Amino acid sequence: MPIRVLGFDGDDTLWHSETRFHVTQGEFRELLRRHVPDVDVDARLAGTEMKNLSIYGYGVKSFTLSMLETAMELTEKRIPAADLDVILAWGKRMLMEPTELLDGVEATLRSLSGRHDLVLITKGDLFDQESKLARSGLGDLFLGVEIVSEKNKETYTGIFQRRAIKPEEFVMVGNSLRSDIVPVVELGGRAVHIPYEVTWAHEEVPEDELPKHGWRRLETIRELPSALATLQDFGSSGQSGLPDR
Amino acid sequence: MPIRVLGFDGDDTLWHSETRFHVTQGEFRELLRRHVPDVDVDARLAGTEMKNLSIYGYGVKSFTLSMLETAMELTEKRIPAADLDVILAWGKRMLMEPTELLDGVEATLRSLSGRHDLVLITKGDLFDQESKLARSGLGDLFLGVEIVSEKNKETYTGIFQRRAIKPEEFVMVGNSLRSDIVPVVELGGRAVHIPYEVTWAHEEVPEDELPKHGWRRLETIRELPSALATLQDFGSSGQSGLPDR
Repeated sequence: MPIRVLGFDGDDTLWHSETRFHVTQGEFRELLRRHVPDVDVDARLAGTEMKNLSIYGYGVKSFTLSMLETAMELTEKRIPAADLDVILAWGKRMLMEPTELLDGVEATLRSLSGRHDLVLITKGDLFDQESKLARSGLGDLFLGVEIVSEKNKETYTGIFQRRAIKPEEFVMVGNSLRSDIVPVVELGGRAVHIPYEVTWAHEEVPEDELPKHGWRRLETIRELPSALATLQDFGSSGQSGLPDR
Repeated sequence: MPIRVLGFDGDDTLWHSETRFHVTQGEFRELLRRHVPDVDVDARLAGTEMKNLSIYGYGVKSFTLSMLETAMELTEKRIPAADLDVILAWGKRMLMEPTELLDGVEATLRSLSGRHDLVLITKGDLFDQESKLARSGLGDLFLGVEIVSEKNKETYTGIFQRRAIKPEEFVMVGNSLRSDIVPVVELGGRAVHIPYEVTWAHEEVPEDELPKHGWRRLETIRELPSALATLQDFGSSGQSGLPDR
């Protein structure tokens, strides 16, 4: 079946996101090291983030609140307010940074938008994601925008129903095996994985839990148009989705 | 035209929300008074919230971050981390509280769901709103859920298009004149205003900017079914939307 609809992830597929979390987390590590030199700050922050995920959800505001909580816990509330104010300012800076597109994104989406319906399917904070999309200059290329709190089979099923999309005519493009590839392929859709330079540990999937077919891996979004042209049937050909290398 | 679709606001229309902000804000006022007895804490917090609205958007996480910022500013960063930790915990408490329905909500929605398509149209933090809906027990009564970052003519137009709703067959029910009544009536839909016991100043609209027709005011959601039965044409009858009292 021809590919009618292309779904695109936003963070780390169309625009840079995780590198910014990494930069801020590096600053956080340095700041906390001055107070508690012997603590694994990254591990403690990751623990706080995971614990808070069911209360705060994803996004920069959640990350900021988790940094503040971790800073108070690790210092047993001895950290001066001035340092906490610095952390608060990092969060604001992350939210206000210009949307920096990945290489080749704009040209590729423009060329694909004439041939397919493009839908942005992104996870995280509603306000932040809308704001990033508005600043990206890509808004008019998307026929629809879906901002969801979690990307799993249930949310993709809802999107398919709402937009009258058959899984067989849908290809999802994203950097997260867990959120963009696995649930879509399990629903009978196809997917293209474009890894980002950094992956949040939370999004990783063990290799043996990956679907055998129905998806491909590319190095850059520039390869997407030619890949789509040749993969009309890569879901049913029995061809492995795993890369050759 | 018959009323086919009913839109419902969530916060302070179906479940309590603003009273919780008020309770926390009262605690915040008391806490800050110990550090800066002569400052109008509420005015300063409101100023911070408005200034941050374009960066953080609505919701409890934004409110928490604005409380922290206000506390640091007002004390010139002299506030102990232990007090900031208390503020952080208030935010979490607000996010974890059970969803407390307003009186009559569940019975009214159950009776209306057989006759109309019900859509929840709510503003704020995606994750928090989904979580509140899930805990409300009302999820299965709604044909659709729309969580938007701002409720204005543009977002309502988007919802109408996406869901193939004609404005003339749509009635919006909510507690905010600014978000639930004015934009819908301006688009040719109808609206029912059910004031909540407390209104956030940001949501208020001067009386002379209110539409003359196309909406009604009720005291409780219990009056909604009978009001709908009699208001099939209240949009075109020239009858004022303003209450008699």
